[in-house]
Amino acid sequence: MTEFSLHPQLEADCHWIGRLANCQVLLHHNAGVPWYVVVPETEAGELHELTRAERAEVDRALDGMARFIKRHHGSQRLNLGAIGNRVPQLHIHVIGRHEGDPCWPEAVWGHLPPGPEWDSDALAAIRRLAPVAG
Amino acid sequence: MTEFSLHPQLEADCHWIGRLANCQVLLHHNAGVPWYVVVPETEAGELHELTRAERAEVDRALDGMARFIKRHHGSQRLNLGAIGNRVPQLHIHVIGRHEGDPCWPEAVWGHLPPGPEWDSDALAAIRRLAPVAG
Repeated sequence: MTEFSLHPQLEADCHWIGRLANCQVLLHHNAGVPWYVVVPETEAGELHELTRAERAEVDRALDGMARFIKRHHGSQRLNLGAIGNRVPQLHIHVIGRHEGDPCWPEAVWGHLPPGPEWDSDALAAIRRLAPVAG
Repeated sequence: MTEFSLHPQLEADCHWIGRLANCQVLLHHNAGVPWYVVVPETEAGELHELTRAERAEVDRALDGMARFIKRHHGSQRLNLGAIGNRVPQLHIHVIGRHEGDPCWPEAVWGHLPPGPEWDSDALAAIRRLAPVAG
């Protein structure tokens, strides 16, 4: 896995948070909603192409982040998506949502308006409390 | 599982295709893209609330439909999403996408324009060939 590198568009759009279950965990710059991205360290482009063991690890990363988002951000609902129409590298969005957030009840993709950046204290707390290794 | 019933909005929006791995499989009426919906027969509202065994079944249903969509519809890419901001019953969208489809490269949610209905022959072929039981 030492050769794995993130797609430059994901690097440009997101903060790096850490690693969890052989996935890289990112946080989208737009702080309008808590929008995390889980990137399995694989060359596979689609979830159904993973081995059963790899898929179980991805599920563990997604579930870990889902629980963290509910706990840390108090989100009512999780939105998950594996889309990849623009960025072919497999990546799964895990987003905390609540009534009244900036694009509720729409999905975020193509609907979330530009928002503030995460401030450095919020980002440090996320890196400290999320279930990731540095 | 005999008490499970689909949310009326999913019933209104979709054709019923069959059952796979303790999930109900639906097809959205809008034939602009092959848009399937996998509904686990559970009371849980989020994927991370499923037991490990239930989650493995959902993954099996999602993977089976993903492979079917690539094979039957010739899709280049799969889009998966668990959103549920309007319909709280857990359901996962599995959508076949290709360059030049009616809302490429946007995600379908809130972007797919009204489209034709599936004709009865296409629907019969899907019910016959998809990896589902009636």
